[in-house]
Amino acid sequence: MTKVFDQPQLFAETALKGFCAANADRVAMVPHGAVRAAPGAPGKVALLVGGGSGHYPAFLGYVGTGFADAAVAGDVFASPSAAWIHGVAKAANRGGGVIMGFGNYAGDVMNFGTAAERLRAEGIDARLLVVTDDVASAPAGERARRRGVAGDLPVFKIAGAAAEAGLDIDAVMAVAEKANGATVSFGIAFDGCTLPGQGKPLFAVDAGQVGIGLGIHGEPGISTQAMVPAADLARILLDPLLAERPASHDGRVAVILNGLGRTKYEELFVLWHHLSGLLTEAGLTVVQPEVGEFVTSLDMAGCSLTITWLDDELEAFWRAPADAPAFRKGTVAAPQAAEARDNHTASVAEVVPGSPQSQQAGHRVAALIGHVANALADAEEELGRLDAQAGDGDHGQGMARGSAAAADAAEKAVIAGAGAGTVLSLAGDAWADRAGGTSGALWGEALRAWGQVLGDADTPSALAVARGAQAALEAIIRLGGAKVGDKTLVDALMPFVQVLNEQVAAGESLGVAWAAAAARATDAADATAQLTPRLGRARPLAERSLGHPDAGAVSLALCARVVGAKLG
Amino acid sequence: MTKVFDQPQLFAETALKGFCAANADRVAMVPHGAVRAAPGAPGKVALLVGGGSGHYPAFLGYVGTGFADAAVAGDVFASPSAAWIHGVAKAANRGGGVIMGFGNYAGDVMNFGTAAERLRAEGIDARLLVVTDDVASAPAGERARRRGVAGDLPVFKIAGAAAEAGLDIDAVMAVAEKANGATVSFGIAFDGCTLPGQGKPLFAVDAGQVGIGLGIHGEPGISTQAMVPAADLARILLDPLLAERPASHDGRVAVILNGLGRTKYEELFVLWHHLSGLLTEAGLTVVQPEVGEFVTSLDMAGCSLTITWLDDELEAFWRAPADAPAFRKGTVAAPQAAEARDNHTASVAEVVPGSPQSQQAGHRVAALIGHVANALADAEEELGRLDAQAGDGDHGQGMARGSAAAADAAEKAVIAGAGAGTVLSLAGDAWADRAGGTSGALWGEALRAWGQVLGDADTPSALAVARGAQAALEAIIRLGGAKVGDKTLVDALMPFVQVLNEQVAAGESLGVAWAAAAARATDAADATAQLTPRLGRARPLAERSLGHPDAGAVSLALCARVVGAKLG
Repeated sequence: MTKVFDQPQLFAETALKGFCAANADRVAMVPHGAVRAAPGAPGKVALLVGGGSGHYPAFLGYVGTGFADAAVAGDVFASPSAAWIHGVAKAANRGGGVIMGFGNYAGDVMNFGTAAERLRAEGIDARLLVVTDDVASAPAGERARRRGVAGDLPVFKIAGAAAEAGLDIDAVMAVAEKANGATVSFGIAFDGCTLPGQGKPLFAVDAGQVGIGLGIHGEPGISTQAMVPAADLARILLDPLLAERPASHDGRVAVILNGLGRTKYEELFVLWHHLSGLLTEAGLTVVQPEVGEFVTSLDMAGCSLTITWLDDELEAFWRAPADAPAFRKGTVAAPQAAEARDNHTASVAEVVPGSPQSQQAGHRVAALIGHVANALADAEEELGRLDAQAGDGDHGQGMARGSAAAADAAEKAVIAGAGAGTVLSLAGDAWADRAGGTSGALWGEALRAWGQVLGDADTPSALAVARGAQAALEAIIRLGGAKVGDKTLVDALMPFVQVLNEQVAAGESLGVAWAAAAARATDAADATAQLTPRLGRARPLAERSLGHPDAGAVSLALCARVVGAKLG
Repeated sequence: MTKVFDQPQLFAETALKGFCAANADRVAMVPHGAVRAAPGAPGKVALLVGGGSGHYPAFLGYVGTGFADAAVAGDVFASPSAAWIHGVAKAANRGGGVIMGFGNYAGDVMNFGTAAERLRAEGIDARLLVVTDDVASAPAGERARRRGVAGDLPVFKIAGAAAEAGLDIDAVMAVAEKANGATVSFGIAFDGCTLPGQGKPLFAVDAGQVGIGLGIHGEPGISTQAMVPAADLARILLDPLLAERPASHDGRVAVILNGLGRTKYEELFVLWHHLSGLLTEAGLTVVQPEVGEFVTSLDMAGCSLTITWLDDELEAFWRAPADAPAFRKGTVAAPQAAEARDNHTASVAEVVPGSPQSQQAGHRVAALIGHVANALADAEEELGRLDAQAGDGDHGQGMARGSAAAADAAEKAVIAGAGAGTVLSLAGDAWADRAGGTSGALWGEALRAWGQVLGDADTPSALAVARGAQAALEAIIRLGGAKVGDKTLVDALMPFVQVLNEQVAAGESLGVAWAAAAARATDAADATAQLTPRLGRARPLAERSLGHPDAGAVSLALCARVVGAKLG
């Protein structure tokens, strides 16, 4: 159980503040993240790491000399928004470009990707380092679809050492990609974890059982089996990794035995006693092993084993000194006193007033978003439960948080005189910013695209609204890469957009057309939900990385119905 | 739940092996403990720390430059035996004397005390550093009766820094005692922990409740109350410590926020966010705070706050660099390569054969110990349950483990030709060695004392047996300091010894006298058990530090009955 919090939705932000206060001699707080108190040399390649909170020491604990330059912290188990990432990256940048390291989850891929595009548009060389080490999540031949777990530690550590050594961004990326390609992990779980404020664990492993290959957010694993003694657990962890030993590799390995939170140090040492024997038997030479907590998952019970197949270059960077709040190696000279930093506060968007008609339409749009936010707040728990069956259970929270922020931003935009298009765009920005995660990124892009079609000049026609919906759909497909049948919100949005456009083209009023479209979206979402297998049963690999399969479609249909009821 | 183990009774030993394997570049394993791989300079004062296992990073994780020279690891939640401590202390000694640091628990006080006596007898200056920081366990005026909890960290850290700086043993002890006197802790618990192999937690905190001042082995606290938000928890932790601020102290403090195992880092950072504000409000200046896991209690949920009121000397030693597997501060030069160490294997006792009659009696003694061991194995769970109501729940395990080792040693002694006295003495040594904890120390001393009275020359008479029992009682009172009414095994042993001596003096056979004595012991144990309040109710302070109040009496009476049945 996560027990210590005030308001659950402020958990990650408060933890960030506390982390920075406790480590004030080592890190400086920036909005939604931390940077080194003593920044690297000008021109140094900056390594920014991040992802959802709930995994400490990942990612804040990695900020320090020889390791990361900065970390961005999303809400618990939710990707930080592109805007947050962008802000921390700007603070971390020393002029040598920014490498952004994160685990391979849909929300992180989208948000870090969007942030990288913005940085590049500003002339900052930004690269993506996607960690894909979890062998349980996809076969060896489909490396790019593997999740990122405790492989974050060696991959980021090696990348950080290469950057500290003064390599340029291409060279650091080459080393980092090689490290990721050489890193494999496998995990087991004994019990689930509980999100702050939740009365029940996000997922569970039955008493006396062990979940084999279960993901750190409860993503489906390979199987469950009866619990066995430590000596047998050691083989379960090691065998899948040995199976991926590169041909003719000389056997030098970095090894990390990582506790997920509730499986404690002495249990890990018991396991290590067996593992060190098995590793020697397998002809491997372990270089500076790490046994402890490095990538946790709140209070989840379980552990994972990570191997990085070293060559001379990787070994040198693995051995290099590092000094971060939660990780150190060798001897690092004391950093210089913190230099003064710019304040990186989010800039307030300037609103260009819309036409009087569009301002009136903007008022109506803001009211509709307010209704949507109310409905999503009511549905938060139900959506979370639905999502927990196939994803990480944060969809309800993300939708409620995002839509509330969107409604607030829309209200402010109306007061500032914005037209309908700007109201919708600013609502989208706020949604992405506060919701984080996959759905935040998608909804943010969708509302922005929709708003651009509406513009701020005229009262939006039914046709403009329908075309805006089409643009929103296209933005989501572009960003998320999903198609109908992938069990994402596209399954509901696609028929919604089709029906809306057909009926408007046939001369129906917006109210009638929207209602018909919402009904079709609801049917489609229900069908999608039927298709989604429950947690614990093996799901086709293609479904695993898609974030919130059926919950996303269900919440989209709900929003469509709420708006339809007000339009009709 | 502690999930990862092979045989529960080997958990601590296997964890020690794994710890030493994972940190082979920093520590060297010795029997039952670890020493620095690169020992301190010759003549340096050595700091040995220790206690039961289950508290990592305490104590093994503290071994390193600027901190401890060695750590001795008992079984889970059980004091290491005097023999184990003695062996590790000999390995740690650099010629400047050995300071032995441990928390204030009855078993540790006895075993470290006995080890110190043996070291002094060998010409090694050995001192005891007893940490007494838990303000919940006794009032400020009775400092010496407070338990030791996370105050271990600053007290040992400061002592280690003073020793590293080259102070002599008197000066290091003066600094260390000052640090202990200036250190206060207060803890809260949300849920209990589970010993390896146990199906249920050692103790529990009801859902939605928080245990205030609960000890790290479940020792009774001050109260329980409904769970509150983090901001309120911060006040609950801090207020009792502020109440003990020394008069006219300038406000410089070392502060440690310590997680007990299942309460995770981000929860601690949330708490720290509030605490750092409250500490500033209270006019305190926090010097290098530590927020994390330093003295855990398996997977117990909860945390503790520790404050050390600094002066210039304490602050300098708190700030001094340190580099141990689980704790580092500042910059420490890389240690030299490990020097060759002596093997410190336990010496096998040489057995001087007894007279033929005494050998025969020794055979009988060994058989009786075997019966006792069988009965204690059967009663292990029941004794554990009984002990968990008032103590740390390990009494059943300790008695089973100790008596099994005693039976084994007795058997071997018989084969080697030992007389009755030597059989009993060697059984006592083995009991203390394997049982650890309070009861192990007491039973070990008792059997040794009894064996000395029996000797190896004659068939022991009924009178010799009764006098031996008297000697055993005296040894226990001398070592443990308990008297009748303190709810320890003395409550049962005292009437047993009285009745046995009375009846033997009156001419009864040993069988009759023993049976009568065993019956009286059983009555007394039952009466003792009646008197012991249940967990969760406040108990008089005088009862808290006595180890296993009623379980010890009950197990003694059980042993008396088993032997009586065989003698009769």
